[in-house]
Amino acid sequence: MKHNFKYIPLALIAFFTACHNNQKMENAKQQSAQVFPKGKKISNGNFTGTVYLHPMIAADSINTVDVGNVTFEPGARSKWHLHPAGQILLATGGVGYYQEKGQAKIILRKGDSIKCPANVPHWHGASADTAFSQVAITGREKGPTVWLEAVTEDTYRGGSGK
Amino acid sequence: MKHNFKYIPLALIAFFTACHNNQKMENAKQQSAQVFPKGKKISNGNFTGTVYLHPMIAADSINTVDVGNVTFEPGARSKWHLHPAGQILLATGGVGYYQEKGQAKIILRKGDSIKCPANVPHWHGASADTAFSQVAITGREKGPTVWLEAVTEDTYRGGSGK
Repeated sequence: MKHNFKYIPLALIAFFTACHNNQKMENAKQQSAQVFPKGKKISNGNFTGTVYLHPMIAADSINTVDVGNVTFEPGARSKWHLHPAGQILLATGGVGYYQEKGQAKIILRKGDSIKCPANVPHWHGASADTAFSQVAITGREKGPTVWLEAVTEDTYRGGSGK
Repeated sequence: MKHNFKYIPLALIAFFTACHNNQKMENAKQQSAQVFPKGKKISNGNFTGTVYLHPMIAADSINTVDVGNVTFEPGARSKWHLHPAGQILLATGGVGYYQEKGQAKIILRKGDSIKCPANVPHWHGASADTAFSQVAITGREKGPTVWLEAVTEDTYRGGSGK
């Protein structure tokens, strides 16, 4: 019986080693879950909370849109703003919010896409508990983004339409 | 000693259960690795091999680009073609190829982005061994895509510039 007893610690070591290695793989996968690079912290005053921008494609005389990856930490959001040539958002990870003036807040999840119509005030950002990543495709041929007031805590935490 | 011996099978069961559950989580994560829906098989003759399209955003009179998710199975690729208002590709998963006429083939991986200039013949697709997913952002205001000849096997398998 003594001979068999010594396998107990061996089995336990194997068990905890397997768990530890799987945890390391989980962490690596979560890190690689970000589709596009996070980029640099935005410091222009147009956002509430911590937001990162990785510019990907610049508009030019023929290609009229620019493309960037925006990552919002939980609770972070843009101010209200509008785009004279509209904007397209593609949700690539996490849980986010999008709201047009006078409409209910919409919840965005990985794989969702939304078209912000030209000149319609709106805001977008992360949900309160979960970060959010989105690709923003912004038409530049009709002038720059017009920034408006900050999104209040009441508006940010207001009910969603879905 | 008999009392301790009975924990060996328990420890082994715990070990194999943990492994099994982790394997299930791995599989679920791989399935969710696709950022945007795969959509439907393309059957228009403009591609070689099996390719899927999920349309996401349609162009309109103000928003001049359309956006779609394209998934190429290994070996699949577009024919040579050009866009009168250019195109932007965002690589979201796998390994793909992109080549402009007269240039070396470029390898695309998750997180890469590329601007195809207007009216420059090019092709794109999966690598020979690995599927490839990309978001295609295509300017529509200067006319439809012009489709050219198929990409030969020699060209497809030709050397890459990076």
